[in-house]
Order: sequence, then structure tokens, then C-alpha cells
Amino acid sequence: MCGVPVKKTPVAILGATGTVGQRFLTLLEDHPWFELVAVTASERSAGKRYGDVTRWMQSTPLPERFARMELLPTEPLRDCRLVFSALDARVAGAAETAFAGARHFVVSNAKSHRLDPDVPLVVPEVNAGALELARRSPHAPGAIVTNPNCSTIGLVLALKPLADAFGISRVSVVTLQAISGAGLPGVASYEIADNVVPYIPDEEEKMQAETRKILDDDQLILSAQCNRVPVLDGHLQCVSVTLRRKASEAEIRDAWERFEAEPQKLQLPTAPKRPVHYLEGSAAPQPRLHRDLDKGMAASVGRLRPCPLFDYKFVTLSHNTVRGAAGGALLLAELAVAQGLLETTFS
Amino acid sequence: MCGVPVKKTPVAILGATGTVGQRFLTLLEDHPWFELVAVTASERSAGKRYGDVTRWMQSTPLPERFARMELLPTEPLRDCRLVFSALDARVAGAAETAFAGARHFVVSNAKSHRLDPDVPLVVPEVNAGALELARRSPHAPGAIVTNPNCSTIGLVLALKPLADAFGISRVSVVTLQAISGAGLPGVASYEIADNVVPYIPDEEEKMQAETRKILDDDQLILSAQCNRVPVLDGHLQCVSVTLRRKASEAEIRDAWERFEAEPQKLQLPTAPKRPVHYLEGSAAPQPRLHRDLDKGMAASVGRLRPCPLFDYKFVTLSHNTVRGAAGGALLLAELAVAQGLLETTFS
Amino acid sequence: MCGVPVKKTPVAILGATGTVGQRFLTLLEDHPWFELVAVTASERSAGKRYGDVTRWMQSTPLPERFARMELLPTEPLRDCRLVFSALDARVAGAAETAFAGARHFVVSNAKSHRLDPDVPLVVPEVNAGALELARRSPHAPGAIVTNPNCSTIGLVLALKPLADAFGISRVSVVTLQAISGAGLPGVASYEIADNVVPYIPDEEEKMQAETRKILDDDQLILSAQCNRVPVLDGHLQCVSVTLRRKASEAEIRDAWERFEAEPQKLQLPTAPKRPVHYLEGSAAPQPRLHRDLDKGMAASVGRLRPCPLFDYKFVTLSHNTVRGAAGGALLLAELAVAQGLLETTFS
Amino acid sequence: MCGVPVKKTPVAILGATGTVGQRFLTLLEDHPWFELVAVTASERSAGKRYGDVTRWMQSTPLPERFARMELLPTEPLRDCRLVFSALDARVAGAAETAFAGARHFVVSNAKSHRLDPDVPLVVPEVNAGALELARRSPHAPGAIVTNPNCSTIGLVLALKPLADAFGISRVSVVTLQAISGAGLPGVASYEIADNVVPYIPDEEEKMQAETRKILDDDQLILSAQCNRVPVLDGHLQCVSVTLRRKASEAEIRDAWERFEAEPQKLQLPTAPKRPVHYLEGSAAPQPRLHRDLDKGMAASVGRLRPCPLFDYKFVTLSHNTVRGAAGGALLLAELAVAQGLLETTFS
Repeated sequence: MCGVPVKKTPVAILGATGTVGQRFLTLLEDHPWFELVAVTASERSAGKRYGDVTRWMQSTPLPERFARMELLPTEPLRDCRLVFSALDARVAGAAETAFAGARHFVVSNAKSHRLDPDVPLVVPEVNAGALELARRSPHAPGAIVTNPNCSTIGLVLALKPLADAFGISRVSVVTLQAISGAGLPGVASYEIADNVVPYIPDEEEKMQAETRKILDDDQLILSAQCNRVPVLDGHLQCVSVTLRRKASEAEIRDAWERFEAEPQKLQLPTAPKRPVHYLEGSAAPQPRLHRDLDKGMAASVGRLRPCPLFDYKFVTLSHNTVRGAAGGALLLAELAVAQGLLETTFS
Repeated sequence: MCGVPVKKTPVAILGATGTVGQRFLTLLEDHPWFELVAVTASERSAGKRYGDVTRWMQSTPLPERFARMELLPTEPLRDCRLVFSALDARVAGAAETAFAGARHFVVSNAKSHRLDPDVPLVVPEVNAGALELARRSPHAPGAIVTNPNCSTIGLVLALKPLADAFGISRVSVVTLQAISGAGLPGVASYEIADNVVPYIPDEEEKMQAETRKILDDDQLILSAQCNRVPVLDGHLQCVSVTLRRKASEAEIRDAWERFEAEPQKLQLPTAPKRPVHYLEGSAAPQPRLHRDLDKGMAASVGRLRPCPLFDYKFVTLSHNTVRGAAGGALLLAELAVAQGLLETTFS
Repeated sequence: MCGVPVKKTPVAILGATGTVGQRFLTLLEDHPWFELVAVTASERSAGKRYGDVTRWMQSTPLPERFARMELLPTEPLRDCRLVFSALDARVAGAAETAFAGARHFVVSNAKSHRLDPDVPLVVPEVNAGALELARRSPHAPGAIVTNPNCSTIGLVLALKPLADAFGISRVSVVTLQAISGAGLPGVASYEIADNVVPYIPDEEEKMQAETRKILDDDQLILSAQCNRVPVLDGHLQCVSVTLRRKASEAEIRDAWERFEAEPQKLQLPTAPKRPVHYLEGSAAPQPRLHRDLDKGMAASVGRLRPCPLFDYKFVTLSHNTVRGAAGGALLLAELAVAQGLLETTFS
Repeated sequence: MCGVPVKKTPVAILGATGTVGQRFLTLLEDHPWFELVAVTASERSAGKRYGDVTRWMQSTPLPERFARMELLPTEPLRDCRLVFSALDARVAGAAETAFAGARHFVVSNAKSHRLDPDVPLVVPEVNAGALELARRSPHAPGAIVTNPNCSTIGLVLALKPLADAFGISRVSVVTLQAISGAGLPGVASYEIADNVVPYIPDEEEKMQAETRKILDDDQLILSAQCNRVPVLDGHLQCVSVTLRRKASEAEIRDAWERFEAEPQKLQLPTAPKRPVHYLEGSAAPQPRLHRDLDKGMAASVGRLRPCPLFDYKFVTLSHNTVRGAAGGALLLAELAVAQGLLETTFS
């Protein structure tokens, strides 16, 4: 395996106090390649200790050594090149550009640069090759690489094996998205308890544009309807697809089950054993039961059946703050290390 | 207005102790035309008082005069011709046939007879004319007339104005259905808390078949995906439609806003002032905020926008145990009275 | 009945856009005595229309005539003397003083002045007489009168009949409070879903001090533990009490059932028919089933049983934004009108 | 360490398909001492495969080797002596007696025999010594030993360090209990969504009697009020205590923090590192955040403060189906093995 570091690579988290930032910390606690050396926050919190400022909402305790870290202002750092951005979209655009300009390799979870033509938008199992674009970064030796929206990730993981095997021409998707996707404070409890909110700002447009960019298919016609439901974690999606060539149900399941990609071949530390699990049974996947599959890094798929309007319909699920945010970004950084991109961009 | 009774018509509820039965009682408390004279239950509860047996789950108190009523076995009755069936599907088929055979006019909420060719399946605003079929009931002078599935009702109310004005050729619908639709005990709390269950037995088939029967259109192609979400009451549906002739957004809204039908013209007591409300704003309708519109009898529609795959997409909502069950059946009975059907079938 | 206005009294709501403000609007829609003539908000929203600024979260639609009202800055007004304050505690103190200083009769829902010695803290059924203190207001002819905390109101309604009949020496109470008590955005959904938060800032101290002031009993020893639970509306309280003289269960129930006070005698428009309902059955009251009793203005009590440590324990429930906030304040204003206080203080 | 088996002890689960049974399977998947060799169910399910019959509700997948196991009728077995009973209370009494009579060592989670004078009721950290009673079992060489009720376990873990250090004379406790405590189907979702049910059958009596038996203190006066709240897992308890000798807050915290008992000394595989964690901060513990502490085997305590009526009040939390059921029973079996009880009772 190429690119395995002999000593741990120092990393920082930008915007470390929010829900996605917290997930990054949790996932970095015992990471074999990366060592968290810096956490940043807004001006208001800078100078304070992470544990004193953060409303910790994870179900595992905040590690003591992280709690003691001093929050830095969100400005280019000395001690590490690799930074994970969990910044809010309102500040991410300019801040990430500044970091890249200061020779940082920025792995971003924010929407700001995803659709920039010179910025890779990558799901490691789906379009690992697109990461090469970072070698030609306008900020070289710095770079920005991006993780898609939390609902896009789950969708493209389910679509990719079908796109490879049969081609896909049309996709209709209705999402049932968890509240953690909105961060903290995010959705008010009085708004979502005993309720569904059938609208998430910009989400439908993001899903449509990002999916086309990642699958690298301008011909693909996609329609998304996005809903917020009272679920803590895990985005469920009801999908209908038209394939470019006919396929049986068995062939489709087989495509999902056999699917394996770069992260699995490279045995990246955060890679799920299998990116997509087809679950038998009439009522799977379900957010609470299946979001943590393969440590939250696998997508699960179920209920494949013919569709009177498209070829097939099915349900897919993925963990929105693990696979769909912090875990996805971590895997992306591991892929970049394994592809030798950090050596290339920094010298 | 034709058919207004001079004295109240006595009615009974079959299967009165469940959630739909409870809704019937609530709606009959002050009904201007109907007087509840009998409630039936399973053999096990017969002979006991309604209030002693029923786990009352409504947010208005059980009226004392109903609490004192004795539960009868579910067998043909003497004192009333009009009966509402809130029976469980496992027993409804045979029991309703027995009641109709004994000259009862059965307004049923159960699925058992909905697709029988000689049984009307009616939403009063949508296909009032189909109720005439009851005059030719094989059980005459008894008859069975049926209310569709709770999710079908909301869908056809939203579709009917478009079908009338523009024609509809294709419908894709994903539902987010409330837990009250499953009755009591229904969905276990441990199953649905912090979760979505992407499957409701037979629901997709029911929606597809019933919608075609009610809209009386064999050419209509419809695909449904049904989900259970942790919401108490109110079924939300994400709909995409292809119209037979092109229409602007303004024309479509106009069709919904102007929609008025038999129940409104006849001023039936349970009829909503307007069957369909188009709600402005980016995030409407929502179950908790809009399910009680027009006392729970109106459907609400929102988020009309173009769809890349169909012509338009939108969201619709209706109260599943009021409009979608007890209230819908009550309106149907009122329509039958106004059309003189009870006089015809019983003599 | 004294004090019934011949024409409607004009009123304003200060801080009208929040959850309590919204409840005030709902309750004022058809009020027989009061006519809403002005709504105020923060500087930022002033000048805009109420309907454009407010995230309306009530399950009944916002009346069109209210939606069109222009939001005024929160400054003394010309057109009305009676104002309801739904202001946030951070601004209520100074603003209410300013309004009273400008001859307004302020009925406040904020905590700021509740414990001021010259400000009445009143629950109309419990200590109507304390309202007289407003005649000696330091701001005369203006005045501030206050409504207690949402959990205090439910507690004192349940305690008052026992205090009158038997005397109370010790009270232990654990609350399970609804999320609407925290306003909007209030509790983040990610914080409270599938969770309990065993702490509400200052709530325990407020309950202890306010209860003693309202019951006018310095000897009463009270201990409160307050929890936030994932319930929309309705504060449930588990109470244990030691009485000053022994009483049987029957006597206690009787005290609750017979309890009637000023608002009932004066037939105030917002008064519940009965302030306290004892509910039979082993599992009552429950927030969702019983919070709307008597239009949300009654407290309900249940599960009276002996306590091994105190004399008795029981459960009580009241609607926190109706009885515990907007409705309670409205009733208080009605009492003030009936007592001729508005004539006295303004001239 | 005494009693460590050289090869794994075969064990069975009686009533393996329910929620507690499912937890047992999960915890036995990689157990170092025990090997699951048999699962039993009701007559109706016997003969079927575990995976075909069980509605698996855990968030980790059902291990394939368990899914394939054939369900046996709940009758004495040949292949193992140690059996865990997750039987429903309606059948547990007689069945457990039958198993013990057939030389089985039964570790039971059911209430049926807990208060029998010759049956040990044991929480390993609290009264390990009481397990010796099993040596004098009337069923010798078989025996029944029991795990207390899920809410009792959390309470006695929090109380034991205080009882040892200061003595306890009075305890007032109000519980906020999770829905998983009621098993499957258990609490209907329509009953508990947006609601609290202030009653759990027999729970208050169980807590009072079991706590006295485990703490072996007839003088202790205890009053419990039990509520069901819409939380998946984790019972929260608001506790007030009067101590026999005065203690400062620091001494109490210290007693909790230093608490260590038999399971920790013996390093039993399922023992938490520390049985009780005092959590700093104003709003801890919370069910969702802290129920999984030490793999769900530790109790957490927080909000210690003086009480106007008792000496102190505080909040405690423990995982009801792990520590409070399956995990607690497993730890009890490990203690029995370590104490050489299985060798004694079976020969």
C-alpha cells in the first residue's frame, strides 16, 4: 500500500466546536495516520479551552486531551499542512481560500467551493480519480478539495455501482433527512417535534448539481425533493431510477454487493469494508438500525422493486454526519495521502 | 338543499374502541344530522361500558354519555340503518357483508371491499357520482360504500382539480405517514422513535389501485413509495405529476384555489369550506401546523415548482384519521343522505 | 358582574413574534372584551408586517387581520393603556418600567419584576386580592402586574385548594417540562430528541420563591427539581406534600373538585369552568391528552396516593403557554378590569 | 483472580427474541468466558430459526451464527447449566423454578422470584455477598439468582457509596424511564409520542421493596414516583436523600468517585471500570449523551446540591437494558463463576 505515513501527520480542524467538528474529534481520537494538533473557532471563542466552550453532544465522552486544547482563531497555521474544514458556509468560502493560499491542503465539508471548476468534489469510492485535479490547484502548493453534501454522498454511493454496470439516465429522489444535518442549534425542537418540514434551503439544487459533477454525467436528469424529519442521524432516500441498459433485480443487487473501490483496495483506515450493503427484508434500511453499519461509513440499500414509471425503485440510507460529513472528509484525506498528494502540493 | 333530515338519523359505529372509532365518536358528539345510538366491539368487550374498555387517546375528553354506552357484539342491529365501520380489516370483510345483507347502509373505512366492482369507493369532492352505484347494490336494500385509504384520500384531493383542468398522465408519490394510521397498539414506540420505517404493508398497492378507481382513469400510471415517520397525525406526500396538457404554475394554483365540489355546494355539515388550500411560503404544508385546517377536513398543498423529470412537483398534506378516515366517512354518509340514498336502499 | 366593558378595550402585545406572543394573538382573535390594536417587536423587525416577520408555529392559521399589522418598536403607545408583555427577560425589566412610567397598565409574563415587593404576582384563582397592590403602584397611574413562571402556575393551582382546606407545610416537586416553555428557537432539536435535560436555568429557584409569594406563606418549605422532556406543550409535575392537618384522600379530592374562585364567580371570559380537574384512572394526567382541558386553562390532577415520606403524592399538569403564559396573563387582565383597576390607575 | 474458566462456559438464553433477549445476544457475541449454545422461545416460535422469528431492533447487526440458531422450547436443556432468563414475568415464575429444579443455575431478569427470601437479589457492586445464598438454594444443585428491576439498579448504584460512607435514612425518587424498559411491542408510539405517561404498573412498589432488600436496610424509608418518557434507552432519576451523618458536597462526590467493588477487584469481563461517574456541569447526566458510558455498565450522577427538605438532591442515570437488564445479569453470572458458585451448585 502506497502512502502510509511512518509517523502521524499533524492535522487541524477549522470550526471545531459545531456538530461536524465534534464528529471530527471523535473520529480522530484513535486515528492511525493523523494526529490532531490544532482546533480553531470564531474570534469570540479563540483563546478559550475547547472543553469550556463546546456544547458536547456526542454519545462518547470528549477525550480529556482534546478538552484541554486551546481554540485558535481561524487563520493559517504553522504546525500542520492538512486541515479539515467544518466551517459554516457563511465564512468557509473566504477562510478556505486563505488557508489554501497559505499552502494548506484543505479538506472541506462546506458547500462554498464544491462546484468551483478547479476544485475536486470527491467521494473516494465513486470518483477517486477526480482528486488528481488538486495537483493543478490554483493555490499550489496549497489546495482545496471538497466532500459533497450529506445527502449527495448517500445517493452517489448507491448509484455508482449501477452507473458503472448499466448506466443511469434518470433519477427521482425524495429525502427524509435527519436533524443533525442542520448543525447546532440548527432545527428548533418546537419546529420539528411531531412534524416534518418539507423544505431544506438549497438542498435540492445542491443534490442535483453535485451528483452530476461527481458522476461526471451531464446527461443525467435528476429531480430531488428534500424533507427534514424528526430523526437524530441518518438520511433516508426513496429513489427511482431509469437505467441505460436493462438489468434484472438480481444483477442490480449483485452490482451493489460486489462493489469495491479505491478505499477498499488501498485499505484506507476509515474505509468501510463494503461501501454498499444490500439489506434483505421488507422494511430496511431504517435510520436508527442501520446508520452505524461499518462504523457509519457504509451506505445501505433495500426494498429494490420494479417501478411503474422508472425501471426500479429502492431505499438508501447513510449516516449524515459520519459518512456524509466528518468521516467522508477523513476518508478523502486518507485517499489524498495514499495518492501522494500532500507530498506534491507541499514541499 | 336536498336531503336535510328533520330529525336526527340514528347511527352506529362498528369497532368503536380503536383510534378511528374514537375519532368517529368525537366527530359525532355534536353532529347536526346523526345521533349515535350504538357502538360495537369484539366479542371479548361486548357487554361492557365503552368508557371502561376503551383506552381513550383523543385530546378532547370522552363525552360522558358515550362513556356510559354498552358495547354490543358486532352483529346486525335493530335501531339504526346507517352504520360506520371502523372494523379491523381482518374481520371487516365478512362483517360488513353481513350488515349489508341485513339491510344496513354500511359506510366503511376498511380496505376489504374497496376494490369490489359493485362497491362505490368515494371521496365526496372527487367522485360523488360514483355513489349512485349503491342504488344497484347486490345487498339491496342494504349496501356497502367505502372510503379510500388514508393516504389515497389526500392524494386524490390534490390531484382532482388538476385532472379536471389539465388531465394527468403520470404520478410519482412518496409518502411520509403518521403513526396514527396504524391504529392502536399499532407501531411500537421502540420501532419508530428516532427512526423512519420505509415500508407499510400493502400501502403502495392500495394507493395505486384506489387512486385509479376513484379518478376513474385506467391510463394513469402511478408509482407510490410509503414511509412511516414519527409524527402523530397527518400524512405528508411529495408528489410529481405529468399533465396531459401544459399549464402554468399560476393556472395550477388557480385550479386548486377555485376547486369546489358537491359537498361544498350541498353545504354538508362536515364539508370543509374549501377542500384544497394552497399555502404560500417555502416550507408548507407541515403536519403539525396544517393538519387541522378546516377542522381537519381540508387538504393543503404547497411548494409547487417545476420538476426536471415530470412537469411539476409539490407537497400535499391531509389529516389521516379525520379527512383520511372518520371525517371522510362521515362526509360520505352525509352525501348519501343528501342524495336520498338511504331512503332508496331502505324502505 | 362588575367591570364588563361596554365597548372593547384596546390592547397591545409587547414582543408579539415569539411563541408566547403568538399564543396571545390566538387567544385575542375572538376576545369579547379586548381588541388587539398594536403589536411590538425588536428594533430590527419594527416597521415590517407581523405576518412577514413571524415564524408562525401555532396549529391554527394566523388571522389575516393580524398578519397585516405593522410591528411597532417596543416603546410607549398612544392608542391603548392595557399592554401584555411577552418580552424576553433580557429586555423586559427596563421596557416594562418605561411602559408603566408612561401610564400603561402592564400585564407581564416576564420574570423581571415578579419578586419586586411593590409588584403583584397573581394567579387569579389563587390570590386575586394581591392585585389590589397595583392601586399603590409606584408608577401610578401606570402599573406592572405579573403572571408567574409557567411551572409555578400549575403547581399553585393544585396546591391552593389544599392550602385553604388543610394547610401545607412541605412540598417536594419534580417537573417534566415541555419544550415550548423555552420559546423559539429555544431548545435545539438535536439536544432534546431521544433525551431529557435535567436542568432549566433558574427554574428551580423561581418556582420556590414565586410559590411562596403567591401562597403568601413564608413557612412553606419547598424543593423543586426541573427537567426538560421532549413534549411540545404541557408541564407535568410529580408532587409530594405534607399537610398541616390530616386529611383523607376523599377530602383532598373533594377540595380539588369543589375549588372555585374569583374568575369563576365573576365569569371572566377566559376563566376555565373549573380551575382544577381530578382525573380518575391510574395513568392520568398526561400532557398530550389533558393539556387542552377547558381550552388549556384548567390544571388537571391525578394519581393521589399516600406517600411514605410526606403525607400524599400526586401528579399535576397544566398547559404552559396557555394557562402558564398568555392565557394566564389574559385572565389576569380580565380580573383587573373586573376589579376596576384600569379605571383607577388611568384617568 | 479466582474462577476464570479455562474454556468457555456454555450458556443459554430463555426468551431470547424480546428486547432484553436481543441485548443478551449482542453482549454475548464476543464474551471471553461464555459461549451461547441455545436460545429458547415460546412454543409458537420453537423449531424456527432465531433470525427468521426475531424482529431485530439493535443498532448492531444480528451476528449470522446467532441468526441461524434454532429456537428451542423453553424447557430444561442438556448442553448447558448456566441459563439467562429474559422471560416475560407471566411465564418466568414457573419456568425458572422448573429450570432450577433441573439443576440449572438460572440468572434471571424477571421480577417473579426477586423477593423470595431464599433467592439472592444482587447488584454485584452493591451486595456481592448476598450471592452466597445461592449455595443454600432449595433447588440445589440448581439455583435461581436475580437481577433487580431496571430502575432499582441505577438507584442502588448511586446510593451504595453514600450508604457505606454516611448511611441513608430517607430517599425520595422520581424516575423518567425509557420506553425500551417496556419491551416489545411495549409502549404504543401513539401513546408516548409528544407525551409522558406518569405511571408504570407495579414499578413504584418494586423499586421500594427491591432497594430495601439489596441495601439490606429495613429502616430505610423510600418513596418512588415513576414516569415513562419518550426516550429510547436510559432511565433518569431525580433523587433526594437524607443521610444518617452529615457530609459535605465534596465528601459525597468523593464517595462516588472512589467507589469500587467486587466486580472491579475481580476484573470481571463485563464490569465497568468505575461503577459510578460524577459528571461536572449543570445539565448532566442526560440519557442520550451518557447512557453508554463504560459500555452502558456505569451509572452516572450529576447536579449534586443541597435540598431544602432532605440533605441533598441529585440526578442519576443508567442504561436500562444494558446495566439494568442483560448486562447486569451477565455481570452477575460472571460474579457467580468467580465465586465458584457454579462448581458448587452443579457437580
